[in-house]
Amino acid sequence: MITLASDFGSPYPAAMKGVILRESDARLVDVTHELPRQDVRAAAFWTRETLPYFPPAVHLVVVDPGVGTDRDALVGRVGDHAFVAPDNGVVRPVARRLAAETGADPEWFVYEYEDPASTTFHGRDVFAPAAAAVHEAGVENFESLPAITPADDAVDLRFPTATVEGDSARGEVLVVDDFGNAITNVPGSFLDGRAGETLSANGTDAPVETAYAAVDPGERLVTVGSHGYVECDVNRGRGDEAFGLEPGDDVRLRF
Amino acid sequence: MITLASDFGSPYPAAMKGVILRESDARLVDVTHELPRQDVRAAAFWTRETLPYFPPAVHLVVVDPGVGTDRDALVGRVGDHAFVAPDNGVVRPVARRLAAETGADPEWFVYEYEDPASTTFHGRDVFAPAAAAVHEAGVENFESLPAITPADDAVDLRFPTATVEGDSARGEVLVVDDFGNAITNVPGSFLDGRAGETLSANGTDAPVETAYAAVDPGERLVTVGSHGYVECDVNRGRGDEAFGLEPGDDVRLRF
Amino acid sequence: MITLASDFGSPYPAAMKGVILRESDARLVDVTHELPRQDVRAAAFWTRETLPYFPPAVHLVVVDPGVGTDRDALVGRVGDHAFVAPDNGVVRPVARRLAAETGADPEWFVYEYEDPASTTFHGRDVFAPAAAAVHEAGVENFESLPAITPADDAVDLRFPTATVEGDSARGEVLVVDDFGNAITNVPGSFLDGRAGETLSANGTDAPVETAYAAVDPGERLVTVGSHGYVECDVNRGRGDEAFGLEPGDDVRLRF
Repeated sequence: MITLASDFGSPYPAAMKGVILRESDARLVDVTHELPRQDVRAAAFWTRETLPYFPPAVHLVVVDPGVGTDRDALVGRVGDHAFVAPDNGVVRPVARRLAAETGADPEWFVYEYEDPASTTFHGRDVFAPAAAAVHEAGVENFESLPAITPADDAVDLRFPTATVEGDSARGEVLVVDDFGNAITNVPGSFLDGRAGETLSANGTDAPVETAYAAVDPGERLVTVGSHGYVECDVNRGRGDEAFGLEPGDDVRLRF
Repeated sequence: MITLASDFGSPYPAAMKGVILRESDARLVDVTHELPRQDVRAAAFWTRETLPYFPPAVHLVVVDPGVGTDRDALVGRVGDHAFVAPDNGVVRPVARRLAAETGADPEWFVYEYEDPASTTFHGRDVFAPAAAAVHEAGVENFESLPAITPADDAVDLRFPTATVEGDSARGEVLVVDDFGNAITNVPGSFLDGRAGETLSANGTDAPVETAYAAVDPGERLVTVGSHGYVECDVNRGRGDEAFGLEPGDDVRLRF
Repeated sequence: MITLASDFGSPYPAAMKGVILRESDARLVDVTHELPRQDVRAAAFWTRETLPYFPPAVHLVVVDPGVGTDRDALVGRVGDHAFVAPDNGVVRPVARRLAAETGADPEWFVYEYEDPASTTFHGRDVFAPAAAAVHEAGVENFESLPAITPADDAVDLRFPTATVEGDSARGEVLVVDDFGNAITNVPGSFLDGRAGETLSANGTDAPVETAYAAVDPGERLVTVGSHGYVECDVNRGRGDEAFGLEPGDDVRLRF
């Protein structure tokens, strides 16, 4: 199985699929091709929150603002999962999570390439062939490929950590999802036992609830989202707009 | 085969796919994840108009404004098709249509769940596991699963019926499609033998045609759409805007 | 394998998939369903730039502003690839490219149909059944189908050719991609050996670069895109807006 995630929209993912299918009968599963454009941090968040649910697979992740520069093509392994991505940190958080869940250590490699057909579409010309080759060699065995060499170092990416003190927390909006939910890095445990109480997020008040429908359509709420973090939401509406929050914004939560 | 339909956009469907693929080798087919957000009626329309074209399958449909409340998780069977969805009526119209086409009676069950990992993403934590379990047990046999119990009742959903009298009809706009076609509930037979005549839709005149291209680009027409209903359209443009029609609007058609 | 490309957005492609899957176990691969609406030329460009990367397959392409008129349903073969599409030129450029790459001559056929269930959705009622039938008969053998007859002629579509003279070129914007890159028909060789120099595109200056990241975010550049043509781009932004270019615009490039 090869999963595909990118910020390519349409129709560039098709060329990647074609290239892979010429080399491999692997099952292909689209994760998404609508990742926020050239936003490595958002891509790192969303792949961390989706790929660990998959069975063992080769995960191709292409969000690549450095395409055409000398950044490396990275291949990683955590247990029976492999990753193929630009060396910009995008798959480090998901690898760290899978390592924590499985006890396997992440291993990192460089996929050597020269003179791809384009300087602007390495998804097609570098990463898709790499994913097909890794899949065909096998996750446990891909370092037998001549193009694969150990990575001396690899670009890391870590999300900021929130600070919780009693009734207040300071954190950051990590991402806003497609529904407009503003997902912070404040751990959901901050809301433990506080359902029904009022929380202020940067001065905007909202009740703590466990279901969107606990408030009327269009009304604000704060809840623990499916990622385990505090989210600022609106029932059938956009929390980002109602709370005035964007990715990267500092957020102060206070009961 | 498991088909997937939701209003999740990107990237939440990927978590559902991963969860299913950990439990099942089923073929997965995306119906769409761009259903109008939290719009159960539109989802009921579009699943009724697409799922009956599929061969026997487990159809997972997640448009779920009541997520986290005490609404049930519903499992249905019509012949060799199964449905997994929130108990909000969303799969009742498609089940009724399949029943009419096949003569099989719809049967309804509750999928019992407790304490899913999240209160906001039952697509991942309740419905995807349910769909995988139903698929693995088999459509003819899934009530052998301990989590499956007969449903005493299930929320129904019916579309309004239009009234046709001679040269005029009263109905409603059921949905507007991606092209901007305003799809009413007036049966297409209302236009039988009237091609070339002028019809007024809420006072806006347009010719009855059988092809968009029968009128110039940008011009209005009224036709029988692929769902069998009267549609208010524009050739290479948006009928909803040109006729001033939105989903739920009353519409009066008059020759 | 059957690939699917259309301008249908959501959810109409699902009906096509269902119809095919009732007749065939073929692997289905979505190319895209987000082609620019009713834009045959853009669809011809994008299918030419994606489908040749695939292994042998039946390629279903439905961008069909003439649906419901008397335009034919076309079936083509180039070597071990087949095409199913409306006879409006949309698959002629991709067939020409595959012919050039493989040496095989394109062959064209008409798929005869009468009285499909709808006059507005031949993707579901004509082209999907045709693609399934062609796939099941086999690419080398589909003319044995009674519905297939040789095409006396077929609508052609050719892209305009650019003129290069020394330090200047005259061409046209063929398409703008999802990233906002304005892709011209000026061959990339026009930029050979000119990296770092300044080029004027309709009077707007930008440096010639081989990577988006060679300029600061938000800054213009001109590069050779992955299609082999000169593109007017912005690093992490939209080239079409920064250069004031739309599909079909004449473009004058001058060093």
